[in-house]
Amino acid sequence: MAKEVEIAQQSEFTRDYSDPPPEPFLNVKELTKWSFYRALIAEFVASFLFLYIGTRTIIGYKDQTDHSDACNGVGIVGISWAFGGMIFILVYCTAGISGGHINPAVTFGLFLARKVSLIRAVLYMVVQCLGCICGVGLAKGFQKTYFDVYGGGANVVAPGYTKGVALGAEIIGTFVLVYTVFSATDPKRSARDSHVPVLAPLPIGFAVFVVHLATIPIDGTGINPARSFGAAVIYNTDKVWDEHWIFWVGPFIGAAIAAFYHQFILRAGAIKALGSFRSNSMN
Amino acid sequence: MAKEVEIAQQSEFTRDYSDPPPEPFLNVKELTKWSFYRALIAEFVASFLFLYIGTRTIIGYKDQTDHSDACNGVGIVGISWAFGGMIFILVYCTAGISGGHINPAVTFGLFLARKVSLIRAVLYMVVQCLGCICGVGLAKGFQKTYFDVYGGGANVVAPGYTKGVALGAEIIGTFVLVYTVFSATDPKRSARDSHVPVLAPLPIGFAVFVVHLATIPIDGTGINPARSFGAAVIYNTDKVWDEHWIFWVGPFIGAAIAAFYHQFILRAGAIKALGSFRSNSMN
Amino acid sequence: MAKEVEIAQQSEFTRDYSDPPPEPFLNVKELTKWSFYRALIAEFVASFLFLYIGTRTIIGYKDQTDHSDACNGVGIVGISWAFGGMIFILVYCTAGISGGHINPAVTFGLFLARKVSLIRAVLYMVVQCLGCICGVGLAKGFQKTYFDVYGGGANVVAPGYTKGVALGAEIIGTFVLVYTVFSATDPKRSARDSHVPVLAPLPIGFAVFVVHLATIPIDGTGINPARSFGAAVIYNTDKVWDEHWIFWVGPFIGAAIAAFYHQFILRAGAIKALGSFRSNSMN
Amino acid sequence: MAKEVEIAQQSEFTRDYSDPPPEPFLNVKELTKWSFYRALIAEFVASFLFLYIGTRTIIGYKDQTDHSDACNGVGIVGISWAFGGMIFILVYCTAGISGGHINPAVTFGLFLARKVSLIRAVLYMVVQCLGCICGVGLAKGFQKTYFDVYGGGANVVAPGYTKGVALGAEIIGTFVLVYTVFSATDPKRSARDSHVPVLAPLPIGFAVFVVHLATIPIDGTGINPARSFGAAVIYNTDKVWDEHWIFWVGPFIGAAIAAFYHQFILRAGAIKALGSFRSNSMN
Repeated sequence: MAKEVEIAQQSEFTRDYSDPPPEPFLNVKELTKWSFYRALIAEFVASFLFLYIGTRTIIGYKDQTDHSDACNGVGIVGISWAFGGMIFILVYCTAGISGGHINPAVTFGLFLARKVSLIRAVLYMVVQCLGCICGVGLAKGFQKTYFDVYGGGANVVAPGYTKGVALGAEIIGTFVLVYTVFSATDPKRSARDSHVPVLAPLPIGFAVFVVHLATIPIDGTGINPARSFGAAVIYNTDKVWDEHWIFWVGPFIGAAIAAFYHQFILRAGAIKALGSFRSNSMN
Repeated sequence: MAKEVEIAQQSEFTRDYSDPPPEPFLNVKELTKWSFYRALIAEFVASFLFLYIGTRTIIGYKDQTDHSDACNGVGIVGISWAFGGMIFILVYCTAGISGGHINPAVTFGLFLARKVSLIRAVLYMVVQCLGCICGVGLAKGFQKTYFDVYGGGANVVAPGYTKGVALGAEIIGTFVLVYTVFSATDPKRSARDSHVPVLAPLPIGFAVFVVHLATIPIDGTGINPARSFGAAVIYNTDKVWDEHWIFWVGPFIGAAIAAFYHQFILRAGAIKALGSFRSNSMN
Repeated sequence: MAKEVEIAQQSEFTRDYSDPPPEPFLNVKELTKWSFYRALIAEFVASFLFLYIGTRTIIGYKDQTDHSDACNGVGIVGISWAFGGMIFILVYCTAGISGGHINPAVTFGLFLARKVSLIRAVLYMVVQCLGCICGVGLAKGFQKTYFDVYGGGANVVAPGYTKGVALGAEIIGTFVLVYTVFSATDPKRSARDSHVPVLAPLPIGFAVFVVHLATIPIDGTGINPARSFGAAVIYNTDKVWDEHWIFWVGPFIGAAIAAFYHQFILRAGAIKALGSFRSNSMN
Repeated sequence: MAKEVEIAQQSEFTRDYSDPPPEPFLNVKELTKWSFYRALIAEFVASFLFLYIGTRTIIGYKDQTDHSDACNGVGIVGISWAFGGMIFILVYCTAGISGGHINPAVTFGLFLARKVSLIRAVLYMVVQCLGCICGVGLAKGFQKTYFDVYGGGANVVAPGYTKGVALGAEIIGTFVLVYTVFSATDPKRSARDSHVPVLAPLPIGFAVFVVHLATIPIDGTGINPARSFGAAVIYNTDKVWDEHWIFWVGPFIGAAIAAFYHQFILRAGAIKALGSFRSNSMN
């Protein structure tokens, strides 16, 4: 592995990759392109499918748990697979169309890193939320009784945990996800790594999977404000709305830390500030 | 990820890939080629193995649940893995031989998108159904008692759900699968994506896996008319046949929506309709 | 997917890949090379690790099931993952050293297809059996009591199933595995497939995983004579030895069918017999 | 598969790859480079996230097991996925920055193979331990009561097993992991293997996963001294400290055997000792 490190050191001096230029802050020209609207449609559809499958899995699982054979539901592992597996296939399917965000926290992190314009970021978040609302709504339409009884997949703080803990769990969980997204889509990777091929959607899906394993007992796991918002709109109780801010503030803080960590610690930022380290060039 | 978006925008104007020409509607010449019959054999064998492993897993699971150690069966997660895992390896094994359909809904979607001829589509569906019948038949031959007692993996609407809900679940579930198939086999991908390498069979297998997690409690999960037909022929009760139309109509509608979505929204169709956006031609 | 089919048709006429020449039946020259002995060592170590991890998982699982918290053992899904996951990493680790067989049935299938010489095949099987014996022996050494009580992972026909059914299950299960091995290591693949990248060890591991899900309730799942032999030698009861032939005959028949299917149906054999189909050449 | 063997034999004589030169024993120059400190930061953060997610999953799982619905916790399979899945994504994210060790045993093995210098090895181990302490500390901060009641994920020898068995299990488990790491990062691979693409982080993650399945019932599974040390510092009981040496000695012995096996059996070492086999030089 030391080999990679050496190569990484080299690339401080002569880069064998090119960073794309930062996106303009406002990019009004995007609004004239069909590909922009196509990306919005893709984000909407992906968010819809994500929440439909996720909510259905939760409802089906609780249904089985209570009524018949307690041991045969999908359990927390099954729910984690449903969310993680969906993110894997949806990022895989939409990466070339919209960039495969499907999550306002991811969009926010990439906006901070100047990978998407403000206009694109805001409109992505809007369609992500709309898609999630429709996905949960359909799951409720399929089985209203179970949906109401079993909480509809809404994110609330579980008994035994405080709001502060849930906020912390959302921050770290989203950090894991957005850090993986940044690592997977780093233009430096494809140029440099020969032994770590860039199968981006799989680690991103696994990040969602493992964070669910760890934090479902705390708050059901948000790490995606659109997912929490969709479930809150359809389930619509006071407790859900009282705690809803956690599932926006936490993920956005986590995404911001991940963007800072990747851009200023792992990538060029800090290196530039320490330019005095450099002196020689490479072949 | 914005980089991909930019590249996607470029490729509206100058395409760096070539679409294969649409298949002829009737392609009688295929019938003179050995490779065509080889493809039929591969689809038959794959469908046979798919249903044998899937049905065996269901029977073994229910056997354990009732009799001895209730909590140690494979559960719904295990059944979902059996179906999803088999699709992963079978698509991997047959992709170069037959295209790796193993599902009339996939064949129907690819026929609508003019990727296969009518003759190929019809004969694929016939051998897929025959393969599935044989697979379930063998599983029944291995253990007739448990097979009859535990429903033989036949798809029926579960108590608490209506036929309309099951139809809806089949439509969306098949949409997820066929959308993934279209995304994975898009010729645009291999030319364009550097950070999303085309490991097609894995996301296709995961799509089958997550849809099973979400919809087994509703109707056992079809999303594959040959799978439902094979189980229905061997289990052969009135209830199964009464509801059997759901597992053809649903998947075919879902596949048709996925073909429309991919061809007209995500790919060339809608762009062509908006030709005024373009000005320059391909290099 | 039709594109692949077309390309497959082309390659009947002008092949863009080269088959390696068949191995000599007896290849005595191999015995003078260090790389041959290195391959034997690698097969031994891999078989040892495979059975140690597999047997430990079975013992640990049964221990938990009986004594304390019945629902928290790894269950059949966990055992299937242990065997399938080990095959994934061991094939990955040894593919470049020994070809990554770790299974006499795989070696037998590749011998029939003239991919390995007789000398190599026989010596591989010997070291695979020795490795498996040592692996089970160590697992027994770690916990003799539980090992004896819980059957030591030995393959026997479960109550409710006949020997004929177990034999059939071994044949089909091994066919799934060896068919995947042939598909994954086909030299035609790497030349032709652009959308099905050759991540061979992962589908091979998944094949082992899904076959375990389906057939653990029948006979514990052999599909690997060395695995069954190692457990039989260490557990050593009359019932195990009475039924032991099933776990050699079944896998060898399954491997032979897979070799026949791949070589004569899917690959060159049958095409050559139908040479009259061919007439023209390609660019 | 025989093809690979042939190619492997060739490469003894004419090598188509270049081994990186061994790292200097002491490499003081590293200390002047920003990339070295960046690697330390990345190892710290990865170790922190690894233990936070792992410990949270254990606590959440035991919480559910005792109090409410016994069968719906993540179980041993879920815990194994949490540790294995995190290693997959963290190796994926940090491979290009620090080499992706996240484990003193891996660092030790790579140091023995002269892949990292002594200075780097020692400082990596220090930050790995610090990261793990912080990760477990945060998990305790989130839920002190459950953390204390359920053992905080600390590694101790389970009832029914001796210290010797736990030591043996740690040695073999770490051997599996470090052997996979060596296989995945072998420079010979990328040059030679066409059918075994180098998706290094996935098999490394799976190695952690399967070893957990097999050895959680023995000692909770260490195979990572920093993981055991972090849990011991925060949980801090006499029993944990009494047995703590097992979780350093075992993994270091296992890593040393893996380094010896890879360098002297599978790679150049033994071949060089048998130099009389060779006659011609590299092209």
